[in-house]
Amino acid sequence: MVQLSGKSLIGFTRGAHADGEFRGVNPATGEQLAPAYFAASTDEVDQAAVLAAKAFEVYRNTPAAVRTALLRGIALEIEELNGTLVKRAVEETALPAARVSAEIARTCSQLRLFADMVEEGSWVDARIDRGDPTRKPLPKPDARSMYRPLGPVAVFCASNFPLAFSVAGGDTASALAAGNTVVVKAHHSHPGTAELVGLAISAAVARFDLPEGVFSLLFGPGNQVGTQLLSHPSIKAGGFTGSRAGGQALMKIAASRPEPIPFHAEMSSVNPVLIFQGALKEREDEIVSGLHASVTLGAGQFCTNPGLIFIPSDAIDSFISKLTEKMMNTARFTMLNSQISRAYHQGLSTLSNQPAIKLFSGQNDSDGCGCTAAFAVTDSKSFLSNPVLSEEIFGPATLLVSYGDIGELSEVARTLEGQLTATVHATEVEIENHQDLLALLETRASRLILNGFPTGVEVSHSIVHGGPFPATSDARFTSVGTRAALRFVRPVCYQDWPDSALPDELKNENPLRIWRLVDGELTRE
Amino acid sequence: MVQLSGKSLIGFTRGAHADGEFRGVNPATGEQLAPAYFAASTDEVDQAAVLAAKAFEVYRNTPAAVRTALLRGIALEIEELNGTLVKRAVEETALPAARVSAEIARTCSQLRLFADMVEEGSWVDARIDRGDPTRKPLPKPDARSMYRPLGPVAVFCASNFPLAFSVAGGDTASALAAGNTVVVKAHHSHPGTAELVGLAISAAVARFDLPEGVFSLLFGPGNQVGTQLLSHPSIKAGGFTGSRAGGQALMKIAASRPEPIPFHAEMSSVNPVLIFQGALKEREDEIVSGLHASVTLGAGQFCTNPGLIFIPSDAIDSFISKLTEKMMNTARFTMLNSQISRAYHQGLSTLSNQPAIKLFSGQNDSDGCGCTAAFAVTDSKSFLSNPVLSEEIFGPATLLVSYGDIGELSEVARTLEGQLTATVHATEVEIENHQDLLALLETRASRLILNGFPTGVEVSHSIVHGGPFPATSDARFTSVGTRAALRFVRPVCYQDWPDSALPDELKNENPLRIWRLVDGELTRE
Repeated sequence: MVQLSGKSLIGFTRGAHADGEFRGVNPATGEQLAPAYFAASTDEVDQAAVLAAKAFEVYRNTPAAVRTALLRGIALEIEELNGTLVKRAVEETALPAARVSAEIARTCSQLRLFADMVEEGSWVDARIDRGDPTRKPLPKPDARSMYRPLGPVAVFCASNFPLAFSVAGGDTASALAAGNTVVVKAHHSHPGTAELVGLAISAAVARFDLPEGVFSLLFGPGNQVGTQLLSHPSIKAGGFTGSRAGGQALMKIAASRPEPIPFHAEMSSVNPVLIFQGALKEREDEIVSGLHASVTLGAGQFCTNPGLIFIPSDAIDSFISKLTEKMMNTARFTMLNSQISRAYHQGLSTLSNQPAIKLFSGQNDSDGCGCTAAFAVTDSKSFLSNPVLSEEIFGPATLLVSYGDIGELSEVARTLEGQLTATVHATEVEIENHQDLLALLETRASRLILNGFPTGVEVSHSIVHGGPFPATSDARFTSVGTRAALRFVRPVCYQDWPDSALPDELKNENPLRIWRLVDGELTRE
Repeated sequence: MVQLSGKSLIGFTRGAHADGEFRGVNPATGEQLAPAYFAASTDEVDQAAVLAAKAFEVYRNTPAAVRTALLRGIALEIEELNGTLVKRAVEETALPAARVSAEIARTCSQLRLFADMVEEGSWVDARIDRGDPTRKPLPKPDARSMYRPLGPVAVFCASNFPLAFSVAGGDTASALAAGNTVVVKAHHSHPGTAELVGLAISAAVARFDLPEGVFSLLFGPGNQVGTQLLSHPSIKAGGFTGSRAGGQALMKIAASRPEPIPFHAEMSSVNPVLIFQGALKEREDEIVSGLHASVTLGAGQFCTNPGLIFIPSDAIDSFISKLTEKMMNTARFTMLNSQISRAYHQGLSTLSNQPAIKLFSGQNDSDGCGCTAAFAVTDSKSFLSNPVLSEEIFGPATLLVSYGDIGELSEVARTLEGQLTATVHATEVEIENHQDLLALLETRASRLILNGFPTGVEVSHSIVHGGPFPATSDARFTSVGTRAALRFVRPVCYQDWPDSALPDELKNENPLRIWRLVDGELTRE
């Protein structure tokens, strides 16, 4: 049985009992959970970053097989914690045990997907242009390049995925896969879950005789630890999933350091759903049920929660009545923590005070962390004239916007900010007839879903969980799926280097049998 | 014969005679060249950006064949200008005609390399994970993703490559290849060259019936036009080659816009050369000659100019005497413009006033744009204690630093800022013995050259012309070679999209026969 200590993991040693004590809280009961957690001191943050830089010198040159083993080892260590981990995460988040178990499974299969990617090896984009000493007027040098790791990565955990987007989540897995060391800032909302997973990673690092600085975990109740960490000269990149305000504050820190660094924030998205008339006629019940399930899943605490639904105005009444029935039969939820719950109720209250808005909601007084599902209705003209209506309300709520015709819908779509996803419900004929609108959506969101629902993000090669600002800080990357590793690498070119001194990926014999671009041709030879 | 008008190209129309008149200057004679050039007005900058956004809606969806034809068409148009273009560029830059001709050839072959890349098509990183409706507990959606263009790109021209890093240079070529539209800010130092090339691009855009906003060219003597352009909400990315001060100012603008955008600045580098004892013993004359040629090539006005050379202290005297002989026999140069010439002389003067520095230099009074080659000598301890010594001096100058042993050399290498290149001269045995130092260099530079010289950047698949800050704003990219297109794209995922509505690159039949990652396997099927 693992004992929680409440102290940061600075490599293999534990932090001290510094100032800034805080505790995990059971959102269902308000109970303060043991043990007390202690903010990492300024010295400890510095030590963790310096250790990460030192370990990077070793870890970045480990063979792919070592990183593969580490990632799989972490998955095994987490699986061994299973009962303890589910219990603690449920206490700290009020998420159902089944959801926590599924998230543990997802976290472990994500670690293994990155392990498979590293084992297969072609992801490094190895390229070889062979030299030609006889070329005129100048000899052509031999040039070979591949992706190499950036350096120590600061990872900021999300409150809404205590496992899959937290200590051993996608940012950590992709950073470690790519050969970077990691310093994680735990989310104050689930410190016990974070400590358990942190100890699992630490155990795997130790088991494979890797230097301790490969992984550290820092606690802190507010912004101070994270700010210091991201500002530290040893940190060379950052990853974050959370609120727009938090993400933008950290973006600013990363960009205004003496040495600016890449910082990936996945922030806010209202995930518009555009429903065309024909599709609604054919599948109204299915669409209402699907949207209701997608809006309320996990108390709506997903970045891909559909927060904005466009419905033809002549079908809105029927849609409202069907959705109302579903919503009224939805159980009361417990949200992740009191801040999120307060923000949800504040968001609903602000929304209901807007002109031309009708709110449909259950009892929604801010009672601890409880809440009920809600939706509001407006029309596209009102939506266009009031920017408040396009703001994300994090929780089980959505806004229905009625539109008159496709021209009106296109006009609204054109004003949308960057999104993680955009969903369309359309018949085959409607897809053909409205290609301009579909093409427009591609400039607003990075995952385009047809006749489905935005929640549920596959961890795969082709997934893109990203999007134009403010969905993320940089639309050129994804924080989920194997492409996520590309956030934390840079191409390095070796010119006229002897075979023996080249990385295995670039040696003449191709000992790893990876796909490489040799003189412009992709080959495994 | 093309007539120069001195006015911006706002799509297919020409700018007005606004305020802010300036002229190209012949740096060899000081002569003001006709015609007068006029800064784009605020309205014109706005029009160019808005046209670029409008054209993007069409251009981004053109088939690969259209973009291929455009890039090749631009190359042809430029080649047709050849005599006129060489004459004007020589007048404006004082670069030798042979160098200008070679740069025109490089610019055209660069356009054709990107055309070939687009034609071959696999660069889009197409990925397909096929769905499985029978998967439990949830059906698996069909997900397909590929790189898609970002939007209108602002390109800032460099003074030192009036063609290859200017109007139709690598930034423009890679942005157009990837499906983006482009607004170029010409460099005030060669406006006539810029106008000629701009007209060539415009002609190609018109010839292929593409919308005019695919390309615009803005003139302006100072920072105002560029600042407005990069701040414009229609602009979605930027590329720049130039000074550290200029690059950092633009980085700040890009990061602090309401919608921050990716901005790629290639800024400053001193391109350290580390010479080991054994290599120097074997090839002293060759190394001295090679470095002398590399330092003085093009009056040293290259980003890859070797500005810092480390030499074993027991060999420094012989090296100095041989280099002095070469330097004394080097002709006087004309630099690109009076600002660069002033900065060069100021840099040498600052350097010579540092303690523990000995400067070897010809007559170096600031006479117009003339200059002579120079080098200075110090030792590694003095170098470590004085940050002024690691600053770039743009021009035909370098700093020799003597070191006692490899420990001392490693200590210095550890303090180096990010660089475009790092060069090592070593024997096979020295490579084996000093692997730690070579590994360290990989974290400081993105092209590592063995027994060669840093000037001369191949335009190829494997080249990396990038590097950790302050060499560039983002080490994860290159501004030269086919990977440069990755700066201006984002992955987009299509979930459960019908085959007919997918881009050709993602259709079941793979009509373009490109390499794709299908269910995790790379295939051309």
